[in-house]
Amino acid sequence: MRPTLQDIHHAAERIRAYAHRTPVFTCESLDRQVDARVFLKCENFQRVGAFKFRGACNAVFSLSEAEVARGVATHSSGNHAQALALAARLRGVPAYIVMPSNAPSVKKAGVEGYGGRIALCEPTLLARETTLAEVVNRTGAVVIHPYNDARVIAGQGTATLELLQEVPDLDVLLAPVGGGGLLSGTAIAGTAMAPGIRVIGGEPIGADDAFRSLAGGRIVPSEHPNTIADGLLTSLGELTFPIIRDRVERIVTVSEEGIVAAMRFVWERAKLVIEPSAAVPLAVLWEHRLDLSGRKIGVILSGGNVDLEALPWVQRPS
Amino acid sequence: MRPTLQDIHHAAERIRAYAHRTPVFTCESLDRQVDARVFLKCENFQRVGAFKFRGACNAVFSLSEAEVARGVATHSSGNHAQALALAARLRGVPAYIVMPSNAPSVKKAGVEGYGGRIALCEPTLLARETTLAEVVNRTGAVVIHPYNDARVIAGQGTATLELLQEVPDLDVLLAPVGGGGLLSGTAIAGTAMAPGIRVIGGEPIGADDAFRSLAGGRIVPSEHPNTIADGLLTSLGELTFPIIRDRVERIVTVSEEGIVAAMRFVWERAKLVIEPSAAVPLAVLWEHRLDLSGRKIGVILSGGNVDLEALPWVQRPS
Repeated sequence: MRPTLQDIHHAAERIRAYAHRTPVFTCESLDRQVDARVFLKCENFQRVGAFKFRGACNAVFSLSEAEVARGVATHSSGNHAQALALAARLRGVPAYIVMPSNAPSVKKAGVEGYGGRIALCEPTLLARETTLAEVVNRTGAVVIHPYNDARVIAGQGTATLELLQEVPDLDVLLAPVGGGGLLSGTAIAGTAMAPGIRVIGGEPIGADDAFRSLAGGRIVPSEHPNTIADGLLTSLGELTFPIIRDRVERIVTVSEEGIVAAMRFVWERAKLVIEPSAAVPLAVLWEHRLDLSGRKIGVILSGGNVDLEALPWVQRPS
Repeated sequence: MRPTLQDIHHAAERIRAYAHRTPVFTCESLDRQVDARVFLKCENFQRVGAFKFRGACNAVFSLSEAEVARGVATHSSGNHAQALALAARLRGVPAYIVMPSNAPSVKKAGVEGYGGRIALCEPTLLARETTLAEVVNRTGAVVIHPYNDARVIAGQGTATLELLQEVPDLDVLLAPVGGGGLLSGTAIAGTAMAPGIRVIGGEPIGADDAFRSLAGGRIVPSEHPNTIADGLLTSLGELTFPIIRDRVERIVTVSEEGIVAAMRFVWERAKLVIEPSAAVPLAVLWEHRLDLSGRKIGVILSGGNVDLEALPWVQRPS
């Protein structure tokens, strides 16, 4: 079932007590640089540092007491894992997180810091899925998929709901696309609240499955995605693909150089810590890939979780 | 003449059309870490990336048309230089900035980006002062001192004015101290608006002239200050010293390690780009140098201008 604007309104009610209403920032030097009026929805200030908390929180609090009693589970080593762990803790139930054994220790510590219970597995998709099935079998936990889930998509859409409440007359909405949960929620909220608004996805050229899927009219998963935007390595799912196909004007691919340049500019001039994935929709503007001159553009800055030891513009010791 | 709360109110009116009203942020993980309720006044989001714009703007717009007609001047290679350049451009007059010939090119470019006219000199205090005198003699520009100026101090006080309007029941105000302009403005606004509030200055142990001046009852300038907090290398002036002596409870010195740890935590958890000087008052809390358990503490995050190539926690290539 595709979520509707009403589902997004319900999600907003459901997560209100737990999620932050994040601020919308503007930056004059950014506007000059890209020749447009840019409104940054700062999900880097969201709890766990990413929009993912919205979807996870809505999913966990959508479950009945009976459904949620034995906990929730997922396989993820990214922001969804931390988001689900925190949402479960707020609901008072366990979260089982399947992570590959080679996941960085900082990510394991992040999940544990929010009270998540980690089940390690071999770093293959098969092992992840097998281990998740075992965990579910053993515990009775409910699986919350990171994006191919209507409750998660509705939750992600609340960012755009808030943005359009604050800046109703946007011409364009830009969001990054990985598995497509955020872009789906953005497109549903945007097109329903502001008919005529253009919704555009930004995607790294090294993980361009959404671009190719829309071109081909069917899901074409990424085979060996490779990009600095580590939140966008996943491919569209069966739920997100048709939403994006029907409601998103186009997917624009951007270069790694564009992502790094846009990211650095936002750190340097807007003083915001954003992760590479958040810079992807900005890179669409940065590289002037579309003629959006003078338009009012809402950009979902998806998150701010980044390894401060390994910034892409800093030369590392060899 | 010491500025009063009324001067700060006038300054707020004067700069309203030009300066940002910066947001006040909170961060749960920071509160847990320091066992207090911290309210961050985000001057890193101020124009030119630092509170300095408030003072420079108030000074430039305090001048009559006749006084300001031939421009303004200062010697500085830091945030005051850029702030004065922008304020002068907004007023439509030239700004002459005396900078040492060895100033980083990024700082020169910053000043020029705001339309400032740079006069280079040898990197000694004597050369700076001589060159500034020559510039003033030649142009008739008005010198705006970075901190030892009542209009500048009143301007800096507007940050605290806004903070206390938003969070009136603070127990403590914490600000960094270099030349003392920000701490003086903070102390005047704080003690006048919230009688009984405790105003405390944070100072790097490697540039502890304010600490020693208060202990000695007279201005004791730093001889060879050395700290990562490059905005705090200057010493108290004749105007700022007595204000701080009379209105500030104490100066607390902090270690370089404490500054870096607090700075990194704010980047990582609050997702705010702040400069080392802004982390100095936080380091007072970080190092638990005072018993402020459970208190409501306002912290002036002074700025966010930092070299992204040279972060203190990143090992550099040798």
